[in-house]
Amino acid sequence: MTLPLLNCDMGESFGNWTLGMDADVMPYVDCANIACGFHASDPHVMRLTVLLANKYGVRIGAHPAYADLMGFGRRSISHSPEEAEDIVLYQIGALAGICQAEGTRLHYVKPHGALYNDMARDPELLKGVMRAVRAFDPDLPLVMMATADPEPNRQLAAEMGMTIWFETFADRAYDGQGHLASRRLPNAVHNDQATIVAQAITLAKGEPLMALDGTPLHLPTDTLCVHGDNPESIAAVRAIREAFQALESA
Amino acid sequence: MTLPLLNCDMGESFGNWTLGMDADVMPYVDCANIACGFHASDPHVMRLTVLLANKYGVRIGAHPAYADLMGFGRRSISHSPEEAEDIVLYQIGALAGICQAEGTRLHYVKPHGALYNDMARDPELLKGVMRAVRAFDPDLPLVMMATADPEPNRQLAAEMGMTIWFETFADRAYDGQGHLASRRLPNAVHNDQATIVAQAITLAKGEPLMALDGTPLHLPTDTLCVHGDNPESIAAVRAIREAFQALESA
Amino acid sequence: MTLPLLNCDMGESFGNWTLGMDADVMPYVDCANIACGFHASDPHVMRLTVLLANKYGVRIGAHPAYADLMGFGRRSISHSPEEAEDIVLYQIGALAGICQAEGTRLHYVKPHGALYNDMARDPELLKGVMRAVRAFDPDLPLVMMATADPEPNRQLAAEMGMTIWFETFADRAYDGQGHLASRRLPNAVHNDQATIVAQAITLAKGEPLMALDGTPLHLPTDTLCVHGDNPESIAAVRAIREAFQALESA
Amino acid sequence: MTLPLLNCDMGESFGNWTLGMDADVMPYVDCANIACGFHASDPHVMRLTVLLANKYGVRIGAHPAYADLMGFGRRSISHSPEEAEDIVLYQIGALAGICQAEGTRLHYVKPHGALYNDMARDPELLKGVMRAVRAFDPDLPLVMMATADPEPNRQLAAEMGMTIWFETFADRAYDGQGHLASRRLPNAVHNDQATIVAQAITLAKGEPLMALDGTPLHLPTDTLCVHGDNPESIAAVRAIREAFQALESA
Repeated sequence: MTLPLLNCDMGESFGNWTLGMDADVMPYVDCANIACGFHASDPHVMRLTVLLANKYGVRIGAHPAYADLMGFGRRSISHSPEEAEDIVLYQIGALAGICQAEGTRLHYVKPHGALYNDMARDPELLKGVMRAVRAFDPDLPLVMMATADPEPNRQLAAEMGMTIWFETFADRAYDGQGHLASRRLPNAVHNDQATIVAQAITLAKGEPLMALDGTPLHLPTDTLCVHGDNPESIAAVRAIREAFQALESA
Repeated sequence: MTLPLLNCDMGESFGNWTLGMDADVMPYVDCANIACGFHASDPHVMRLTVLLANKYGVRIGAHPAYADLMGFGRRSISHSPEEAEDIVLYQIGALAGICQAEGTRLHYVKPHGALYNDMARDPELLKGVMRAVRAFDPDLPLVMMATADPEPNRQLAAEMGMTIWFETFADRAYDGQGHLASRRLPNAVHNDQATIVAQAITLAKGEPLMALDGTPLHLPTDTLCVHGDNPESIAAVRAIREAFQALESA
Repeated sequence: MTLPLLNCDMGESFGNWTLGMDADVMPYVDCANIACGFHASDPHVMRLTVLLANKYGVRIGAHPAYADLMGFGRRSISHSPEEAEDIVLYQIGALAGICQAEGTRLHYVKPHGALYNDMARDPELLKGVMRAVRAFDPDLPLVMMATADPEPNRQLAAEMGMTIWFETFADRAYDGQGHLASRRLPNAVHNDQATIVAQAITLAKGEPLMALDGTPLHLPTDTLCVHGDNPESIAAVRAIREAFQALESA
Repeated sequence: MTLPLLNCDMGESFGNWTLGMDADVMPYVDCANIACGFHASDPHVMRLTVLLANKYGVRIGAHPAYADLMGFGRRSISHSPEEAEDIVLYQIGALAGICQAEGTRLHYVKPHGALYNDMARDPELLKGVMRAVRAFDPDLPLVMMATADPEPNRQLAAEMGMTIWFETFADRAYDGQGHLASRRLPNAVHNDQATIVAQAITLAKGEPLMALDGTPLHLPTDTLCVHGDNPESIAAVRAIREAFQALESA
């Protein structure tokens, strides 16, 4: 049984401002999505975060975003596919350069925030992002939101000559179409650790996940997104890690 | 006889703003110093400029700067050596990623504006910049201002395990210490094409150049800085190129 | 007969980059829309542009935008109405402070680019912008795109206790709904000076303008947008100005 | 006895990043130095901070800085006096506009970080900053570092037709020349609340303060800088406030 990789956003401090508990969560994850300076981070924070990932043998992923520090990359900015392609390529290169300086390399690319959501909705934008990743290194997987019908994206990736990793969330409810339930809905976010761990195990085993409306969802899960913002989320990551270890040794 | 490489600042447009006559000057230079988004340029401009350099077989150099679009990188910003190291590394990586996507690579690094001047005055800052270049690729030459006494910088480069290229200017007068004469002085800038070409030839041949105060200067010249801002400067580049071709075939 | 005021975007240079021919067009316009540093301009450019407007007795308008220098404010950035309100207020204040320092004052506010277009489509965003203008000074008119049915916006302005100025364009064709025809359509932009002047006169007189599909449009025109980007557009502004003077003295 | 006003840096959060405990310290200070978006803050944070100051009747001061979010305004950026003048004016206007929208007004200007330090060393830069404040409103005091010899700055202010407020620090040791002792020295920063309060009282009474080398210093204190970064500094502010109330009622 291949367990999904645990990925976590990292390196989201900026200059004098600190965000996230990177040092606390790094020991428990497989993949560090490192901000590249457009929505968060700066060259110094990026380098420290690469060093921290290296210390724990964690795979490094580029976490490119729209250029919007004030909005933390969470606001859609209308980009042509070519504009998206070029900003993603720039950010991949910047982080890859830091990795190279520290004797390591990029393992994947996971777009951040509004760019991540926009490319899930807009195939042309997605292709722009894919072209950036492929032009840099066709062996670099691109992380995308898992959906109930992954075939179109699998086909697109095959046509583009790319690898994609589907990502799911253990702490978010899904709607009947396999999309993340809107945060405005009650029960959209799981705060209870037992629920989070149970959902992680369901996703890891490839078993059907119950949507908010009761629909059973089959969501492909190459990687599972976890959070390192506060002690509760880190405790949840540890609990998922332990549950995964139990699965592996079972 | 090894002629100095002609290098020119390129890719200094930004978004909707155009600067420089890159397409006109590119055919006549050996090296394109491409801005990396901190003082000028953006991911799209960088990519177009890499394509343009590729078209003419021109070597690509990273042209990193202090983060200061408003001041075009011409204002000193106090940086610790470590801060300078990290911003240079980030910018090198960003351009290197675009080069990689276009099937080419970086050939050298030439810091821009105030950073270039500051590192010529401050050995600790210079070492920070050198560490960035070396960590990325120890074979990448770093372009520095030539001085009348190049030995200290040659020694430092040897200790650091780096290559440096000394740069001189054909259109600027030098003072008796081998520094560029202040632009406030009369005759600090040569506007006459014949004078510019003559100085280029003197520097290329390694012959002594007369300082403003009459001192004969021996300035090592691995590369000669030329300009592509306007028709006059481009005409001067063409004239230097022709003079160099005549030297080569002589 | 009250002629529409001629307004023109100004102060769109930035640092080392020059854009527009402000000094050439300023003598012929009534209103200068001065960029406020978010899509273009900087504190120095803003001050010079205020001085230039003062020299010709031209009314100064704030030209606030989304924070996007790279995209020149032409890319939509999803903003909550409150976010739009606060960025508009900030930019109004910044330019008003410069006006105060130069012994003049703001006369109106005209949002720029994507913000201008987005507020024409999204009433909540429009209300956010209106709140910013009203909170700063309820007597300051807000410039909006004229439409074939201006009543809803007139009512909204009345409810908000605001003044609005409707703006039309002399060099753009309109579709049957009274919207600017998409630039992708043939004939969407008038390049012929006689056509531009004729449309300006039609709009100034309040006569019906023929849409691309032949629909006669009644577009309220408090102010007419003109351009100062190049010699042709400035010649058109002069021709409109002369035509208006002829109307006035008729 | 006129007690010095307690001033505190505020509004230094930025977008998604939080800094400072503004809500906790606001009740105990007289003056809020509100960041203006160049080193910290954004339009939304500025507005919230103005509202918070209004709630407690705290005077609002503009806290302009060099444009350097990454460096938090703590890095010197070489500016001509005219450049400094224009960026200060822009920032004053932006905050003044928000104040106007909230029915209040600016009471003073205190430059931040490197700009504050640079203007204390460079009279031409200081004059540039003074011109900005005076052009906006000649009645607006400019906060400057107190020195053992305040006469030159008093004369300059008189010549410029300006008011200045001298500022001292309760938690910092001074050297024999009346400058803040370098943070690299032991005992440069007071961490003990009793020492801080004692120094505040000495300064408030206008009594001589002992420099690190034993020199008695007479430092004019119109306003005293306090900090709201953490519970300890806020406890110190409360203790100073109580000590001042005791002085007043004595």
